[in-house]
Amino acid sequence: MKATILTVGDEVLIGQVVNTNAAFLSKTLFSIGIPVERVITIPDTEKDITREISKAISEYDVVISSGGLGPTHDDITVKCIAKVFKKKLVHHQQTFERIKNIFERRKLQLPANIKHQAMMPEGALLFENKTGTAPGILILKGKKIFCAMPGVPHELEYITVNELIPMLKKQKGSGGKVLLQKTLHTIGIGESFLSQRLGDLDKLLVKDNNSSVKLAFLPSNYEVRLRITVGALTIQKAEKLLKCTLEIVKTKAKNFIYSYSEKPIEEELGRLLAKRRLTISIAESCTGGLVCSKLTNVSGSSAYVMAGAVTYSNNAKIKMLGVKKTTLVKHGAVSRETAIKMAEGIRKLAKTDIGISTTGIAGPAGAVPGKPVGLVWIGYSNREKSFAKEFIFTKDRIRNKEAMSKMALEVVRRELLDIK
Amino acid sequence: MKATILTVGDEVLIGQVVNTNAAFLSKTLFSIGIPVERVITIPDTEKDITREISKAISEYDVVISSGGLGPTHDDITVKCIAKVFKKKLVHHQQTFERIKNIFERRKLQLPANIKHQAMMPEGALLFENKTGTAPGILILKGKKIFCAMPGVPHELEYITVNELIPMLKKQKGSGGKVLLQKTLHTIGIGESFLSQRLGDLDKLLVKDNNSSVKLAFLPSNYEVRLRITVGALTIQKAEKLLKCTLEIVKTKAKNFIYSYSEKPIEEELGRLLAKRRLTISIAESCTGGLVCSKLTNVSGSSAYVMAGAVTYSNNAKIKMLGVKKTTLVKHGAVSRETAIKMAEGIRKLAKTDIGISTTGIAGPAGAVPGKPVGLVWIGYSNREKSFAKEFIFTKDRIRNKEAMSKMALEVVRRELLDIK
Repeated sequence: MKATILTVGDEVLIGQVVNTNAAFLSKTLFSIGIPVERVITIPDTEKDITREISKAISEYDVVISSGGLGPTHDDITVKCIAKVFKKKLVHHQQTFERIKNIFERRKLQLPANIKHQAMMPEGALLFENKTGTAPGILILKGKKIFCAMPGVPHELEYITVNELIPMLKKQKGSGGKVLLQKTLHTIGIGESFLSQRLGDLDKLLVKDNNSSVKLAFLPSNYEVRLRITVGALTIQKAEKLLKCTLEIVKTKAKNFIYSYSEKPIEEELGRLLAKRRLTISIAESCTGGLVCSKLTNVSGSSAYVMAGAVTYSNNAKIKMLGVKKTTLVKHGAVSRETAIKMAEGIRKLAKTDIGISTTGIAGPAGAVPGKPVGLVWIGYSNREKSFAKEFIFTKDRIRNKEAMSKMALEVVRRELLDIK
Repeated sequence: MKATILTVGDEVLIGQVVNTNAAFLSKTLFSIGIPVERVITIPDTEKDITREISKAISEYDVVISSGGLGPTHDDITVKCIAKVFKKKLVHHQQTFERIKNIFERRKLQLPANIKHQAMMPEGALLFENKTGTAPGILILKGKKIFCAMPGVPHELEYITVNELIPMLKKQKGSGGKVLLQKTLHTIGIGESFLSQRLGDLDKLLVKDNNSSVKLAFLPSNYEVRLRITVGALTIQKAEKLLKCTLEIVKTKAKNFIYSYSEKPIEEELGRLLAKRRLTISIAESCTGGLVCSKLTNVSGSSAYVMAGAVTYSNNAKIKMLGVKKTTLVKHGAVSRETAIKMAEGIRKLAKTDIGISTTGIAGPAGAVPGKPVGLVWIGYSNREKSFAKEFIFTKDRIRNKEAMSKMALEVVRRELLDIK
């Protein structure tokens, strides 16, 4: 079974919207053994949509389109589907009712053009969309499967996970070569060094001619994700091969791996904090609240995140965190000493087990001799000790905030796990 | 001149990396009048890359590839380019030196495999990459233009803006139909209502047969971007048509439009605050630091953002912001009264002109009867008055944090501009 994705919409083709839907669909289909062999983005004109749906359905087993199911006049995918599959468009009362309820829950008035969204190709199966207005539309043509998804990412994701994937799993059955994949997240080591450290794994692994191991390095924002793909004739062989590969990778790069799943560092750290019943508070200067925002992205974080302070001005550092004016004058706001005092200050104020801090130069302005843009001091304090570490990142403000925030979380993780 | 984009990499095709590069390239090329007519994503095998480059260069005027220029063994794009264009690979000393300098600046050891990245197709023009290791590689073949870009987004962006676009502008010259585009950002109004409010603009505009106006609605996270595209035979006609369209849109939806450029709301609000010399402080509960992080994403925000407090626990609300225990007990942490006291508390603590606050239920847990997940109270306080407003968003934690944070900024914007 092979699949293709059609992304519909000028907004994608002219680059106004990033194609996260294709990424999500590809990933999810891959995970059930249906590789996406082509992703193509097309304009939202009737001519393009009808032509590409027809072409795709003749060449692939599974065709998934995204976009063009909304309530406005530029949403014409449903019309095109009806044309390609030769179906009439009919009013679908259940869909209409569901859309009505959504507006009522949010205490909003019902717009007039919403009826347009309840018109469906006659005989199509509809996938319920519990997170938005447009349902997924499924059309089966012989052994071929066509599914139209709304373009709003979280709606597409909901329908994919809850409706499309279970259905495809049933259709697909089993057979063929087994592919298994695992992605590790590393931080604090560059792509080149990681690759050098791991070396040629192929030579270290005992495997037959039908088995394969592939490593891929995916750098982004001072993290490198390491994707391991193994292939074998049976699931047992594939699992064994993946296990061996993981063992070798662990031996070679253990301290840099913060996650053996797709979880971000804040989730991994949150898990550690919750498990050890430790509480944390955060004092931020250059990261401006991002460390705290990341930590609180995790559901249940209220159990360990007690408080945060964003002390952008020196005055706030003094008043909210009790940093001494003399420390700021003598060493500067961006210094080991200030970072330590900030971490100690927030820990005492919030009465937490751990206090962390960031103070640095996010840029693009603010550099002084010896303190370049991208410099950050990350402070850590617990009941026994306080310290601060220095890192230098890049020249871009947003990327600095991101990298510095992740590194602050990593400093805590390393400390908790006693990684030097 | 028509263009195509080849995205190279299994990581994109299996959905591990989102194709932001295609979006960026499409947008940038469109802005200089070179439409991207196809975006295709291909696996990083020699067979696929060489075949697709050959095909693309025969069908399109401009071909841009992204990915596969890194230092690791899975980076094979350079090898494929050499093969397609029949060039030898040679060591490029200048590139090697530049890479060496990058590692030295960050006080890192030079990895061994870095030499691989300095191998270039003989005779290719290189675009300097000031933000990373791999340069852009340009090959001209008759009137056709091929350019290979690194896959790391900020590197690709740097080379595109500073090298590729100026070069393409020169090659292209002028001629053909003129397209102009403008995107407005709206907030606080749904896609359906916005579309209804604007109606059929086509009927309101006086234009000839060679002119066109197109509206597109791009919803994401409780914002709707409204893209206006006008086409006409001359730049003067296109500009006039765009101006007329904008006037009508403004009349019909003015209060919901927070930006007439591609700027996010934090930048727009920052501009207002700076212009009026007002300072702001932020007290956050459910948004966990995200409001403050957004505000501090803007370069120069240290002029108006004084301090933030993330008071996740009741204790922190009492201790850091001076919210009274009786207020929390009587009305609850998620209430109009608490939101107002939080905004007043942070304003007084940080001695700012404005204080804002968020308290709500980000979810997925935490709902109580009458207080559903997605509910937020946004508080506002200045020297003259304090108030709070209630909003209900969705059921997803991350999207709630995002929507609530944007709305908090919007509440301030509306207050400053006296929008009811």
